[in-house]
Amino acid sequence: MSICYLRSSNPFCITNRNARLHDLPPIKETMVKRVAIIGAGVSGLTSIKCCLDEGLEPTCFERSDDIGGLWRFTEHVEDGRPSLYKSMVSNTCKEMSAFTDFPYPEDFPVFLSNSQVLEYLRMYAKHFGLLKHIQFKTTVISVRKCPDFSATGQWAIVTESNGKQESSVFDAVMVCIGYLSDPSLPLESFPGIETFQGEYFHSRYYKHPDVFEGKKVLVIGMGNSGVDIAIEASRVAKKVMISTGRGAWVISRVFDNGYPWDMVFLTRFMNVIRNSLPGPITTWLVAHRTSQWFDHANYGLIPKDRDVIREPVLNDDLPGCIITGKITIKPSLKEIKENSVVFQNSPTEEPVDVIVFATGYKFSFPFLEESVVKVEKKQASLYKYIFPPHLEKPTLAVVGLIKPFGAVMPVVEIQARWVTRVFNGLCQLPPVSTMVEEINETKKNKIRWFGLSYDEILKTDCLVYIDELASLIGTKPSVLALLFKDPILAMKVFFGPCTAYQYRLTGPGKWDGARNAILTQWERTVKPTRTRVVEEPPNFCFNLLKLIGLFALFAAIFLGFK
Amino acid sequence: MSICYLRSSNPFCITNRNARLHDLPPIKETMVKRVAIIGAGVSGLTSIKCCLDEGLEPTCFERSDDIGGLWRFTEHVEDGRPSLYKSMVSNTCKEMSAFTDFPYPEDFPVFLSNSQVLEYLRMYAKHFGLLKHIQFKTTVISVRKCPDFSATGQWAIVTESNGKQESSVFDAVMVCIGYLSDPSLPLESFPGIETFQGEYFHSRYYKHPDVFEGKKVLVIGMGNSGVDIAIEASRVAKKVMISTGRGAWVISRVFDNGYPWDMVFLTRFMNVIRNSLPGPITTWLVAHRTSQWFDHANYGLIPKDRDVIREPVLNDDLPGCIITGKITIKPSLKEIKENSVVFQNSPTEEPVDVIVFATGYKFSFPFLEESVVKVEKKQASLYKYIFPPHLEKPTLAVVGLIKPFGAVMPVVEIQARWVTRVFNGLCQLPPVSTMVEEINETKKNKIRWFGLSYDEILKTDCLVYIDELASLIGTKPSVLALLFKDPILAMKVFFGPCTAYQYRLTGPGKWDGARNAILTQWERTVKPTRTRVVEEPPNFCFNLLKLIGLFALFAAIFLGFK
Repeated sequence: MSICYLRSSNPFCITNRNARLHDLPPIKETMVKRVAIIGAGVSGLTSIKCCLDEGLEPTCFERSDDIGGLWRFTEHVEDGRPSLYKSMVSNTCKEMSAFTDFPYPEDFPVFLSNSQVLEYLRMYAKHFGLLKHIQFKTTVISVRKCPDFSATGQWAIVTESNGKQESSVFDAVMVCIGYLSDPSLPLESFPGIETFQGEYFHSRYYKHPDVFEGKKVLVIGMGNSGVDIAIEASRVAKKVMISTGRGAWVISRVFDNGYPWDMVFLTRFMNVIRNSLPGPITTWLVAHRTSQWFDHANYGLIPKDRDVIREPVLNDDLPGCIITGKITIKPSLKEIKENSVVFQNSPTEEPVDVIVFATGYKFSFPFLEESVVKVEKKQASLYKYIFPPHLEKPTLAVVGLIKPFGAVMPVVEIQARWVTRVFNGLCQLPPVSTMVEEINETKKNKIRWFGLSYDEILKTDCLVYIDELASLIGTKPSVLALLFKDPILAMKVFFGPCTAYQYRLTGPGKWDGARNAILTQWERTVKPTRTRVVEEPPNFCFNLLKLIGLFALFAAIFLGFK
Repeated sequence: MSICYLRSSNPFCITNRNARLHDLPPIKETMVKRVAIIGAGVSGLTSIKCCLDEGLEPTCFERSDDIGGLWRFTEHVEDGRPSLYKSMVSNTCKEMSAFTDFPYPEDFPVFLSNSQVLEYLRMYAKHFGLLKHIQFKTTVISVRKCPDFSATGQWAIVTESNGKQESSVFDAVMVCIGYLSDPSLPLESFPGIETFQGEYFHSRYYKHPDVFEGKKVLVIGMGNSGVDIAIEASRVAKKVMISTGRGAWVISRVFDNGYPWDMVFLTRFMNVIRNSLPGPITTWLVAHRTSQWFDHANYGLIPKDRDVIREPVLNDDLPGCIITGKITIKPSLKEIKENSVVFQNSPTEEPVDVIVFATGYKFSFPFLEESVVKVEKKQASLYKYIFPPHLEKPTLAVVGLIKPFGAVMPVVEIQARWVTRVFNGLCQLPPVSTMVEEINETKKNKIRWFGLSYDEILKTDCLVYIDELASLIGTKPSVLALLFKDPILAMKVFFGPCTAYQYRLTGPGKWDGARNAILTQWERTVKPTRTRVVEEPPNFCFNLLKLIGLFALFAAIFLGFK
């Protein structure tokens, strides 16, 4: 098949059977029907589902041969796909990571291995019949505005499958490619790396700890992956160091009383507190709370710039590894030598065999023209992180280009719900000027709780963000209204974990199971770990005993001094 | 060389050059000079040192070719020697695990790997010149009273080295063989084990996690080793379960604010509180404190008999493994089948490939006659866990037959200090009747804080016990006296961690470095982890901000309800 469409100024020689550029009458402004979805990961799958819910016709192009995206582990790194290490466990618990209308099975563990998340995604895809809308082994080569875009909002998409290119026209496009495929390896920031005789690689290429056996390992950067890799290395390596200039607050999955951190932390009540307090108080509260677990200064982890609350590292094992000497925290690097490194503020050379650059990712949209979405300084100018503001028609959306401090599923799902309702005309975007203004506002280096800063543009406060989109759709629950109608539910919604089921209680897409899902979320959380039950002991008359105890105590302290 | 001494009723044909049974004049009652020490582990080494300090002449017999006992890892299990797994880390921190006059180097990690403890023991042995008193590759075959024992208190000891037996006479004997060489594997308590087609072994035989690769693993028993093994298994196995009838409280090495658990927990102040409160209050406090980390009922770990506070499990990783589904806690076993097991209160068969019996150890003294020390129901009747009460002369002592809830080094050292002073007549034992009475009292199933119960005879409250022996020697520090002389030190001694240096502040064996060792113990603790230092931020005027914050908070909560 010959295609002359690519980057051509005269893109009209499309010979595909799906071609609808000329042979169809011009469609009405809101008559989006056929939606192309690029990628069948978490964002892609929920986008297919939301399209179906809104009466759209999704066609999903997935370059690999299976669904799951990031969550599908492969032994080898595949080009253009995220890559994860075998031991990776979700940072958010199953109740917080569920889609709005599809809770995890109750016997799934509280925090899930990557294979269990994939299993959940397969169940989701099967339950909602998503698979038949996916074209596997199909790479999207280009997405271009059709010539009559300003009238139709349509896109011409060229895909490649089995070496053959095809072009089709779609009424709208959802870009669901994530941002974890293209490693950022800024070697120029590491003087001397060219002389290094050991091995070095980006964290993306890490799969198993065997590569560290008996080695002296340095991990540069302490995001979640960097720390995970260092911990795995510490079990087999001779020595492991993590180099971090910024430091980080570390919190544990096993939070207050052993409940999942996000079910305790991400409640409407807590969010109101966090977002209302002045910055320094919030900072102080975070420092205080994290220090109850361990003093971050004593463990070498204290953040440098404590006014900006960055995304904490989620890890249960790091302090244990530091206190047993398996991992040493070091400041940023000054120089790399042949077989060693020198850290800032220290003259000592530390011998190193392997360097892992856990330096994150960059993202791009290779199939899009810069005029549609331009990525600059790790930022794409997108309204609500979704819509390019300058398009004549809002028929292209980016779903999942966001790094919430919380589970990704509810965020991308609400994005997809809103996008599909914008596509079918039930929701409207504001004027371009408003959108541009908001984008610029967002880009400013706001110092807020997990706020956005220039170098951390993808991170956002997920509750506030989800609520915002939910309000636009009309599915944000009103606690005040609920309080009169269903006070128990209202309490759970306000004080309990802000699980995604809340966004199916009311408005379009209301799900009858939502109330029950909220009321039983703690049961599903406790079920997989309460696997040995012991009868409760009889209730003691504690108060009298406490009083006696208090007297005994004072007497004993006095005697103890003797 | 021919020896006809063994178990002979006429043990007089000893031909060894050391033989002093007949050719020496009877010695004076207190004139113990030559001391045989059996074993060159932690107890043996400190016993040699204490002998030297007290002007005695130690000869240590070690059956292997090196010092270190338990702490020396070998790839293969050796008969009659404790065996540990490669990854084993000390449960007590370096300051609490130091001998009284020999702090760990400040750059050693807070909790030590087994090889680092061994390194410390080597430094200790070298510093105090202990090695020259050890005869390696020498097994003690028998220890028998000399015929004139009632007058001399001497012992005839037959040893074997390179296939040759020798006999020597010693004025006194210190038995330092520990209690972790002889595994307890009560297969009769596990109906169906004979039909089991999978692999099973005692935790003693565990070295590396490779044996669990891809397997379904069941660990029976949840002492520290059982849990450690389960956690290592969980990284490579298909499924890991721990079966426990009793359950356990689990505490973390990383305790309040990240300080080592034992430096927070084992203080004179805390001990006074714990030992003064009525049992149920103590129980409630323990439950409350451990539940702050995680709710033990929700994690399947809650102890069955909450009135008896048993030794907690020390582990940082267990809750993280449970919440991620890597380890499942199960009740005790009902039945073992060919390829599966059935737990109490559940009809389900759980498939199992490997069973690890972490069922502890039993102990015995094969070289001693029962009339000297009799072991019954896992108990040896020893005064203060050390002296057989019925001997005519107190010239045989067992050092290290104790399982303190805390570090073992300070406990065995104080035992050895007391024993050597009993040997040289500077300390006296009470009359036999008093000793027997106290032993019987101890044997009673006392329900106290980490108290002694019939099946846990080796566990004792280490602070109370060390203080008791220190009082007998005259080295127990008086906080009240210190308060007037050196109030800063007094505060550190009473409220700070009860490090062993305290027992060198005063009395026999006083060490000039003790005061400084106590004052700098926190510096040495923080040094190895504070490897990245960030300047302190400027001090904010928090109070005003907090007030504003409080108002903002109330307003926000109100608004949040909307």
